[in-house]
Amino acid sequence: MNTFGEVFRLTSFGESHGRGIGGIIDGCPAGLELNVERIQHDLARRRPGQSKITTQRKEPDQVEFLSGVFEGTTQGTPIAFVIWNKDQHSNDYHDLKGVFRPSHADFTYLQKYGTRDYRGGGRSSARETIARVVAGAIAKQLLAKPGVTIQAYVSRVGEISLQKPYTELDLSKTEDNLVRCPDAGTAAQMIRRIEEAALDRDTVGGVITCVVKGVPAGWGEPVFNKLHADLGFAMLGINAVKGFEYGSGFEGTKLSGSQHNDIFIRDGEKIRTKTNHSGGIQGGISNGEDIYFNVAFKPIATLLKEQHTVDVNSQEVTINPKGRHDPCVLPRAVPIVEAMAALVLADHFLMSKLNAI
Amino acid sequence: MNTFGEVFRLTSFGESHGRGIGGIIDGCPAGLELNVERIQHDLARRRPGQSKITTQRKEPDQVEFLSGVFEGTTQGTPIAFVIWNKDQHSNDYHDLKGVFRPSHADFTYLQKYGTRDYRGGGRSSARETIARVVAGAIAKQLLAKPGVTIQAYVSRVGEISLQKPYTELDLSKTEDNLVRCPDAGTAAQMIRRIEEAALDRDTVGGVITCVVKGVPAGWGEPVFNKLHADLGFAMLGINAVKGFEYGSGFEGTKLSGSQHNDIFIRDGEKIRTKTNHSGGIQGGISNGEDIYFNVAFKPIATLLKEQHTVDVNSQEVTINPKGRHDPCVLPRAVPIVEAMAALVLADHFLMSKLNAI
Amino acid sequence: MNTFGEVFRLTSFGESHGRGIGGIIDGCPAGLELNVERIQHDLARRRPGQSKITTQRKEPDQVEFLSGVFEGTTQGTPIAFVIWNKDQHSNDYHDLKGVFRPSHADFTYLQKYGTRDYRGGGRSSARETIARVVAGAIAKQLLAKPGVTIQAYVSRVGEISLQKPYTELDLSKTEDNLVRCPDAGTAAQMIRRIEEAALDRDTVGGVITCVVKGVPAGWGEPVFNKLHADLGFAMLGINAVKGFEYGSGFEGTKLSGSQHNDIFIRDGEKIRTKTNHSGGIQGGISNGEDIYFNVAFKPIATLLKEQHTVDVNSQEVTINPKGRHDPCVLPRAVPIVEAMAALVLADHFLMSKLNAI
Amino acid sequence: MNTFGEVFRLTSFGESHGRGIGGIIDGCPAGLELNVERIQHDLARRRPGQSKITTQRKEPDQVEFLSGVFEGTTQGTPIAFVIWNKDQHSNDYHDLKGVFRPSHADFTYLQKYGTRDYRGGGRSSARETIARVVAGAIAKQLLAKPGVTIQAYVSRVGEISLQKPYTELDLSKTEDNLVRCPDAGTAAQMIRRIEEAALDRDTVGGVITCVVKGVPAGWGEPVFNKLHADLGFAMLGINAVKGFEYGSGFEGTKLSGSQHNDIFIRDGEKIRTKTNHSGGIQGGISNGEDIYFNVAFKPIATLLKEQHTVDVNSQEVTINPKGRHDPCVLPRAVPIVEAMAALVLADHFLMSKLNAI
Repeated sequence: MNTFGEVFRLTSFGESHGRGIGGIIDGCPAGLELNVERIQHDLARRRPGQSKITTQRKEPDQVEFLSGVFEGTTQGTPIAFVIWNKDQHSNDYHDLKGVFRPSHADFTYLQKYGTRDYRGGGRSSARETIARVVAGAIAKQLLAKPGVTIQAYVSRVGEISLQKPYTELDLSKTEDNLVRCPDAGTAAQMIRRIEEAALDRDTVGGVITCVVKGVPAGWGEPVFNKLHADLGFAMLGINAVKGFEYGSGFEGTKLSGSQHNDIFIRDGEKIRTKTNHSGGIQGGISNGEDIYFNVAFKPIATLLKEQHTVDVNSQEVTINPKGRHDPCVLPRAVPIVEAMAALVLADHFLMSKLNAI
Repeated sequence: MNTFGEVFRLTSFGESHGRGIGGIIDGCPAGLELNVERIQHDLARRRPGQSKITTQRKEPDQVEFLSGVFEGTTQGTPIAFVIWNKDQHSNDYHDLKGVFRPSHADFTYLQKYGTRDYRGGGRSSARETIARVVAGAIAKQLLAKPGVTIQAYVSRVGEISLQKPYTELDLSKTEDNLVRCPDAGTAAQMIRRIEEAALDRDTVGGVITCVVKGVPAGWGEPVFNKLHADLGFAMLGINAVKGFEYGSGFEGTKLSGSQHNDIFIRDGEKIRTKTNHSGGIQGGISNGEDIYFNVAFKPIATLLKEQHTVDVNSQEVTINPKGRHDPCVLPRAVPIVEAMAALVLADHFLMSKLNAI
Repeated sequence: MNTFGEVFRLTSFGESHGRGIGGIIDGCPAGLELNVERIQHDLARRRPGQSKITTQRKEPDQVEFLSGVFEGTTQGTPIAFVIWNKDQHSNDYHDLKGVFRPSHADFTYLQKYGTRDYRGGGRSSARETIARVVAGAIAKQLLAKPGVTIQAYVSRVGEISLQKPYTELDLSKTEDNLVRCPDAGTAAQMIRRIEEAALDRDTVGGVITCVVKGVPAGWGEPVFNKLHADLGFAMLGINAVKGFEYGSGFEGTKLSGSQHNDIFIRDGEKIRTKTNHSGGIQGGISNGEDIYFNVAFKPIATLLKEQHTVDVNSQEVTINPKGRHDPCVLPRAVPIVEAMAALVLADHFLMSKLNAI
Repeated sequence: MNTFGEVFRLTSFGESHGRGIGGIIDGCPAGLELNVERIQHDLARRRPGQSKITTQRKEPDQVEFLSGVFEGTTQGTPIAFVIWNKDQHSNDYHDLKGVFRPSHADFTYLQKYGTRDYRGGGRSSARETIARVVAGAIAKQLLAKPGVTIQAYVSRVGEISLQKPYTELDLSKTEDNLVRCPDAGTAAQMIRRIEEAALDRDTVGGVITCVVKGVPAGWGEPVFNKLHADLGFAMLGINAVKGFEYGSGFEGTKLSGSQHNDIFIRDGEKIRTKTNHSGGIQGGISNGEDIYFNVAFKPIATLLKEQHTVDVNSQEVTINPKGRHDPCVLPRAVPIVEAMAALVLADHFLMSKLNAI
């Protein structure tokens, strides 16, 4: 169950304080020239310590390929890779060995497995997503063949919300600021909001929006693996995610059908829709319009405040965590959202080759 | 890709105007005494024509088992079943043969497959969900063994919203009214809202909330198959669903971490949480608290209003659909949401037998 | 686990004395015109009562499609089908309810599931293979697109063995006699051998050889799903099969490497091999030469002789089965071998579309 | 497709001359104390250079675990491991870059992928089986819980064949000689036969027999995943394997049904069979008797003789391979056969927990 995807498959491994995090990508077609810099670029966007509003942990996060790439090109064989763990202050966690940190996975892992690696969350740590970023960066390179691009950005931090839809934004400006919001003014407010949370030794949540362009009509699988169901599954598998909506989403349910329906029109040679409440997906299959969706991230559970909880012996204890943690996960989660979207789309790109004779 | 689940698996088949809809359930353990009446009860809750606020189509929707059940008991072998299609006014659809109905799957299916069964949506019809209700009703009976119960209800229709959380409602009253909202006053408003939409030959969307009780701590699979990711995937695979959130959901992202964290407490022999923003799931694994989530349904696309669109020859056409359609899908979708939740939970119940030696 | 295949998938259902046997084919591409006569033809080759050397049970074995085919063409959606059980003398089996027939699955099913459908073997009956023949007949029609043909024949019955390799036989004569051996003289001996067994109220086993022509180089998946591993898996899943070998097989292990190696040569534009000990598969991937393999069938366990055994209460009992049974399963197993080969090859045909960019 | 197993799953990676060979084991239950020495012991049995009758290449083959094991115990999380490649004389292979070695996978890989790693066979090298030996050694430790043991041995080399069935042998003597044949006299002949082949710069094939004891009745899955079908699939996926038979195998097909049937008898509290032509498996499910099967290995294709072949430009060339190669793969394949058997049985052991309520 540590495998994601049907045809383009990532199997991930690793714990936050083990030897390393990595994975095997199986099903990547042969003949793809890998641009390792592009992979490293996405790792850098996810990396801790990249700015004043993220954790100050230093992790170089250099990917090493163990197989599947020969003379720079994929071979159709499994691509194994690892990112070695460096900055492993395992001892920081010794005090937490028997403690159930609130809203973490400590309690549930122990209930499930009867044992757990208590060092920094072990397998439940968000550090695991580094494997997804590597695989997603490869998936993006595969998706470049049919011309698909994926851009995510932070659209809300706490109550600070971008007021404009993506169609009125210049998404190329997303990387221009620390918080990865394409509107400079809103970005400034968001950064302030995160700094406040950090000062308060607290955390803050928000929403990431993702836009996918260039998907041709016909990707997606009825009935269970609707394209948006696979996207939602992918997003909900990211640490701290609490919700997913695509196209008109929760708000759109307040419209009437006649307001919500996307009327088909002719646009030169193409058939397109006048509006795009459908978010580029109808009946679970892409219709050629932009795909867009929102992902809700909770305020992360690791606070630097004193908190009451219970330990493995059912004793009440008080914890007062130290360390270097993110006050807000969203800026670093942008490449993770993109990566998971890329994995889903690369999978459906390949599957679309099987649609018809 | 018409299979759902890892261990308890439903493979569904059928088109709205073909011979029938059905499926094969593989992986149901041997020795489960099937109560067919309970299955038929859920089919009746989903059935068209059940009340004045649903479509008036008459479909008896009687399930027939073809295999896997012997002397009333499951045999561990595949359980095949079919619900024969009866009320098939295929000719109603002949006019729509070459037309792309707005926000339906007509266009995308044709793009994907190069062919399509145009009669009533074919495979993309929500009639397919009948197979899920049968399988879900069996999953519910399996889940009764560990004491799990699932209850969904309509919590919003258009702008008419239930103001109370589920913890302040008597969910046993859900079936007391046509709209399946456990609060009588809100239910009356919702029914009125649906009747208005019907009069207006339009449709209206909304939200269904689902509550699962009795799941012990330890179900769910890191990292991709988090329990809520599988639930979200299941819900997003239901026709007309646009969003999913669990626990504190989108709103919870506005809280600070210190407000959002669920503090562990001792409750007699058990370890529980004081609040339940986590929605009963931490790190993707159940923690023993109630699981609850929301599912957003768009206003369905089939209107009885004149609409402009385009046909297969890229010609602009005007359609003016007739027939018997639901002004609001939500009351009939309640058992579908429950069924999909049951499929996910039965799967994780079985998988939990594999956690540890 | 009642599903076969990765991309072209058959999920089968049914017991010998239940309502019917059938299945769902998922992953068949859209746009394949189905020739139902060809399907029915393979069912007739498998049908009981087809000749004096098979069981005299009469089963019409007419396939009925429930979904996935519209106006004679596959739609890319799941193809469900059923063959209704007709000639169900269930009462014949009542005496055997608590008895473990020697070398049948009675004992093992009960051990596994704690329950079993005792009527005629239930799910363990070879009648289940009827679903495979239907799916295989569709796979053959898909394989006709790339020009692949599959022909199996009986090459040994008891000690009566065809002395010539397939390359020296005219396989088009396979259907010219009751036993499906392309050499008339050997066929006559085989028929006599089967008639002797029948007279003796006993049974006889043998070997089926299968030859696949027209597979281009490049089908098959390293490392676990080697083309011959998938073929072997498919064959070993057929009732009564005890062994599988391809190319030079068990005998070839006696050669030295220099005798066994297939030297590459130029043949016009093509690269071919001088000999074909490899059986058309090298490193698990087809090389463009003929694929050929042998399948060993044990003498079936249902005898009309008195036998000693034990019942569910561990009491020793004597059984003296009556009824209409095959003295030799091989003639009817020829289309089953072909069907399973077709399923494997259709799967790899589709997968081969994913090899490279 | 580089994944093996349903519940206990190995995904393998690596090429013979890449960075290393390894894999991820997913689905191993938590709480298994790993004995790394036992793993290393099986690696040593597979290791090149272990005796005068194997290749003299020196490969230390030390396994390094990257995840999933904490304080010596499995955590239920994926177990990643790698065996670093050391003795990589890649340049040895430069001459063979464009050449299709007879009966190797050079030609077919290039046909499939349009590219290939030509160094020592790349992914098609038998060095990949090292990952299987590691995973199999862990599976064996899991299988020790229900008391299952697996012992393979060489039963034929070329024409030199062990005359006794396993029931008349002392399998504990298997490791007493270089060829891993439990009969000292036959072993001596086999060793001589291999030495002759080596002197002749040729290779020789043979048969490995494997015996599994302690499997309780009830493991195996009808209808496609019969226990012997999964075993056969596993064996046929090993490099150089050409055939598989279990129980009475090909020879048994010459018996009549009345000779072949295994009569059930009472043996104290247990129900057993008088003979075991069934090889411990009936209807695809274990019956509690010993499981035994044969695996045919061809003489490996790498000869140190001059051979004619063709290159990528369709030019005829002559090759005269140098290097350190095995004249006979069988002694080193014994632990590989055991490992694959262990993977299959561990998988079915876990699946058997899902049989009944």
